[in-house]
Amino acid sequence: MSSLKVYFDLLSQPSRALVLFLKVNNIPYQSCPVALRKGEHFTDEYAKINPFQRVPAIADGDFKLTESIAILRYLSRTRNLDSHWYPKDIRLQAKVDEFLEWQHLDVRANCARYFQVKFLQPLMTGKPANPARVSDLQTRMEKTLDDVENIWLQKGKKKYLAGDKISVADIWGACEVEQPKMAGYDVRVNRPNLSNWLDRVRNDLNPHYDEVHMYVNRIAESFGGNPPVKAKM
Amino acid sequence: MSSLKVYFDLLSQPSRALVLFLKVNNIPYQSCPVALRKGEHFTDEYAKINPFQRVPAIADGDFKLTESIAILRYLSRTRNLDSHWYPKDIRLQAKVDEFLEWQHLDVRANCARYFQVKFLQPLMTGKPANPARVSDLQTRMEKTLDDVENIWLQKGKKKYLAGDKISVADIWGACEVEQPKMAGYDVRVNRPNLSNWLDRVRNDLNPHYDEVHMYVNRIAESFGGNPPVKAKM
Repeated sequence: MSSLKVYFDLLSQPSRALVLFLKVNNIPYQSCPVALRKGEHFTDEYAKINPFQRVPAIADGDFKLTESIAILRYLSRTRNLDSHWYPKDIRLQAKVDEFLEWQHLDVRANCARYFQVKFLQPLMTGKPANPARVSDLQTRMEKTLDDVENIWLQKGKKKYLAGDKISVADIWGACEVEQPKMAGYDVRVNRPNLSNWLDRVRNDLNPHYDEVHMYVNRIAESFGGNPPVKAKM
Repeated sequence: MSSLKVYFDLLSQPSRALVLFLKVNNIPYQSCPVALRKGEHFTDEYAKINPFQRVPAIADGDFKLTESIAILRYLSRTRNLDSHWYPKDIRLQAKVDEFLEWQHLDVRANCARYFQVKFLQPLMTGKPANPARVSDLQTRMEKTLDDVENIWLQKGKKKYLAGDKISVADIWGACEVEQPKMAGYDVRVNRPNLSNWLDRVRNDLNPHYDEVHMYVNRIAESFGGNPPVKAKM
């Protein structure tokens, strides 16, 4: 059995990205699901794995590590990967790094926040979302998605986020961009380059891509972006 | 003359971190200041350097790169550094990476947002900050600073953020933690470990540390955290 334990929940974007990365690279691991909806990340037991009480995290033998992108860097140094995922060439690697650093406060922060305020908080609290706040967050998210469309993909001149070949930037980017679907927002409308890129990444990574997005797709279909909201007690 | 051009503004935390990193490592570069307060990052000329119109950015000959942490990774691969800054040992390097990834949505996002809403926006718009919003952002910032105190520094068991030796994690971390000072918030109060760590990092990196924080310290002294607010027109 592999010494690598992976703690994740497929409703978390970085968890999906990490699991997808492991699957497409045939890296063996022990699956350790942590159900966020049941608060399993808040147990004392899980705090010993990740003191920040988030997913994903790994334990590779006695070595514990958090933060999905730190984990992917660690795995790319300790496992054999095809070189396009995280190129050895210094400039190509720097361009992958540039996206991995950019995404935190841009595509990640903005798509996640929109999903949380528009969909997750109303579902959890039974209180409808504030329309002005949703509108403000939508504006931020649209700016960031337009940056993917126009700057990262250079209006279609680039096939992938960090060059001509698929890389970890595409895995992490696509998993973030899929999140607003659950809140009823279609990132593809008026963004042909982003849309073609998402199709390309999905095709390259299937069947694993659809597998890790199973819950995202099911929630998007079931709710159509509108969570059942009860009147507040 | 060095082929490395560095575009920065010392009022930006990642710019300070990058300049500090260059200085302590004696990496030669051409200084290209971009005055954010004059909107110099919004010019068409600067958009050719960084299409996201932010600082810092570099041009190393014909190779352009944005995102301070992608830049530090690139420089650590192309220049000679003492190994403690970004360790070659796989596990030590992973622990530095873990902090570098964590900081984006935690110490960076939370300290920056507090500074912007409490100080920068009132200064720029002449409109006082919303006290409820400031209070909410202060709560988030305090959680993140407590994580530095208790988890990263292990309540004083660790001397530096990523181990026993100073690394790039400390440079990037310290520059973020200094930001709320300008908004009148003292991160050291009730945080003895964070306070000792900041002193240690400053001592290790001086005179460069004080040099890059010159404007931060001057603004903190001049305004005491309270920007001059005019009544809105």
